Amino acid sequence: MVRDMTTDSPTDNSKLQARRSFLRGGLAIGGAAAAAAATSGAALANGDPNILELKDWNQYPGDGVDARPYGAPSEFEEHVQRKSVPWLTADPISSVNFTPLHELDGIITPNGLCFERHHSGIAEVDPSEHRLMINGLVDKQLVFTMEDLMRFPRKNQINFLECAANSGMEWRGAQLNGCQFTHGMIHNVMYTGVPLKTLLEEAGLKGNAKWLLPEGADASGMTRSVPIEKALDDCLVAWKMNGEALRPEQGYPLRLVVPGWEGNMWVKWLRRIEVGDKPWHHREETSKYTDLMANGKARRFTWEMDVKSVITNPSPQAPLKHDKGFTVLSGVAWSGRGKVSRVDVSLDGGRNWQAARIDGPSIDKSMHRFYFDFDWDGSELLLQSRAIDSEGYVQPTKDALRAVRGENSIYHNNGIQTWHIKKDGTVENVEVS
Amino acid sequence: MVRDMTTDSPTDNSKLQARRSFLRGGLAIGGAAAAAAATSGAALANGDPNILELKDWNQYPGDGVDARPYGAPSEFEEHVQRKSVPWLTADPISSVNFTPLHELDGIITPNGLCFERHHSGIAEVDPSEHRLMINGLVDKQLVFTMEDLMRFPRKNQINFLECAANSGMEWRGAQLNGCQFTHGMIHNVMYTGVPLKTLLEEAGLKGNAKWLLPEGADASGMTRSVPIEKALDDCLVAWKMNGEALRPEQGYPLRLVVPGWEGNMWVKWLRRIEVGDKPWHHREETSKYTDLMANGKARRFTWEMDVKSVITNPSPQAPLKHDKGFTVLSGVAWSGRGKVSRVDVSLDGGRNWQAARIDGPSIDKSMHRFYFDFDWDGSELLLQSRAIDSEGYVQPTKDALRAVRGENSIYHNNGIQTWHIKKDGTVENVEVS
Repeated sequence: MVRDMTTDSPTDNSKLQARRSFLRGGLAIGGAAAAAAATSGAALANGDPNILELKDWNQYPGDGVDARPYGAPSEFEEHVQRKSVPWLTADPISSVNFTPLHELDGIITPNGLCFERHHSGIAEVDPSEHRLMINGLVDKQLVFTMEDLMRFPRKNQINFLECAANSGMEWRGAQLNGCQFTHGMIHNVMYTGVPLKTLLEEAGLKGNAKWLLPEGADASGMTRSVPIEKALDDCLVAWKMNGEALRPEQGYPLRLVVPGWEGNMWVKWLRRIEVGDKPWHHREETSKYTDLMANGKARRFTWEMDVKSVITNPSPQAPLKHDKGFTVLSGVAWSGRGKVSRVDVSLDGGRNWQAARIDGPSIDKSMHRFYFDFDWDGSELLLQSRAIDSEGYVQPTKDALRAVRGENSIYHNNGIQTWHIKKDGTVENVEVS
Repeated sequence: MVRDMTTDSPTDNSKLQARRSFLRGGLAIGGAAAAAAATSGAALANGDPNILELKDWNQYPGDGVDARPYGAPSEFEEHVQRKSVPWLTADPISSVNFTPLHELDGIITPNGLCFERHHSGIAEVDPSEHRLMINGLVDKQLVFTMEDLMRFPRKNQINFLECAANSGMEWRGAQLNGCQFTHGMIHNVMYTGVPLKTLLEEAGLKGNAKWLLPEGADASGMTRSVPIEKALDDCLVAWKMNGEALRPEQGYPLRLVVPGWEGNMWVKWLRRIEVGDKPWHHREETSKYTDLMANGKARRFTWEMDVKSVITNPSPQAPLKHDKGFTVLSGVAWSGRGKVSRVDVSLDGGRNWQAARIDGPSIDKSMHRFYFDFDWDGSELLLQSRAIDSEGYVQPTKDALRAVRGENSIYHNNGIQTWHIKKDGTVENVEVS
């Protein structure tokens, strides 16, 4: 395995100086070449010959490794934040803080930017005192400490979590100017935990066990009825997200992961799972999280999050900053029923469609990243994306959704989003028919 | 799609009370069952009947969504930190802060816990003023702004980054008591950026272009020689990690990603890439990052990080806290040459081996997570893990490495690690022959 040998050659400062001088010459050449190329729209270089002059940050040492035992973003990224919509809810303890999708790329949502939605604020649970109980129609009623749970075989899954109300304010037309607000009730992380199936088998399900009622330890005591088939399929009782402990606002120290299903079933601060023979019809599955139809009746138990996509860049919070030429359009797509098999993009409000490029891992019930690279001619555009999932479900237009469901709904709006790109690169949330 | 209809059923408080009373009864039953089961070592439940009494956190609302625009871990996780070894380096501006591998799970390292190593502290680069130049043996010398770079087609890759010096202090025997310090110069994140190949093609490589010299914008002006074959293969010029902007200590706003190769080639605060026809023999590839052999000669350009693994739990910083019974052993494995195809675990210092379970995505040049679930009989153990990669390379013992390379090395120690588990569950870093 020895490839080659060398002896130390001391730094030759005259050579170094020569190279630096050449650099300045090189920059002038670079500038000329870039200016010439720019007229054809092919090169993207900025030819300022002073660009590689020494900057402040080349001239003094920065902070050492003692500065931050737990790291934080650059001060230049302070604008990258979760944001709420103050008029949306009566109080910030029962509200939502949206993921800044237009600032992100790839498929992993960093933990600090995962949207949060809680019903009585963020419970401050001490993990050493926290317990999970399984009771009801089981052979052995069990209570687990956190350390008990960590002795069961573990599983890792990357899954998206989307609130059923994501895009809900758009049912009645374009209202919110930015994908952070129209689509930001979603995040996508790697969870680690124990399959719920394993814990239920440990307790022993009785023959008439058909439904579960997971319950949260926060002041709202969130509960939802979950059918046993889903519990035995792919649910996790999870304590890690993206490698580290769950964040407080995501249910620290324990939450239920219900892949592909609406977010409020992913009970946070999970303290108890009751096993029963029928659903409980609690508040969050009757007066809330049901879909009022045009005829006055309501759909309920609409658990799966249907296939959906949105263009994150450009978008109202992330306008185009160049005058035509090569442009990267980017977005995210997901389906609660499987993988995203294809994403199409339209530049003209849905008249013509072209296939986008899905990049990075394609994982079941995970966010997918897509790109559409095109040469913008500088004219106005009506951008849309349309995702198709591995079950063949095609993301519908908003009008097609309204034709079936009426306009009373809040939840489960997976309609195609339209961004109007102006000639100056600014972007507006619009609807086209 | 209408599944069912329901009308609101108002909460019946008498039923709720009855259910809560039943819970207390249920807990007593649970306790008895758990106590009985515990004698067989099968059940893991704690049967305290008061466990689900109301806790503080059930009784008052917590912080609202206005509390943290950018989230942070729970106060109960404050011990989960990057840590340095003060005696290791003369100054914290040229030092290392190790990833707490024993506190993590899955394969994603959260950005706040990614190990950091810098040579003149963390440069504080303003992205609006930062430039990347490509010069030397190219048709057009180019200078890019950050916005220019974002107009090129993007790619996402999950890759590990390991410092060549990871485990370096263990060459002369077991020295550091914890996998954070023996193996924590590694992290694994999803990068987003433009393939280096695309930028080089934009500049146009001359026929004699054989090597690159990426250069950092920090005060150390880090440089390394990179062969053109690698640059055209899978390198990225990246600006995002785990979805968000690079962290300052990871090269914000721009770094080179050199999948599978030693960490200091992944130049941070990347400002310039010079194209040449031979390597530069700079400091970091001559007096440093070369491997002094027993005969006094040095290996150099030892770029690939060989297949390696470590058991993260249990480990010296994460002892076993139970007395025998079902136990989850967990660890990470990686290879700079491809995927990890298998990990074996030994409980007896390498005499007998059993296959571990690799869980979660298996991605080229990415960390892999493995588990070995076993019934601990309470006796002392000598735990080892041995990874095998998709190229057939088998992780060697430390003695086998020393037989080839002598004991002068610092870099490229991928030897098998041994943890001595005592009867009381505490763990020590040891060597076995």
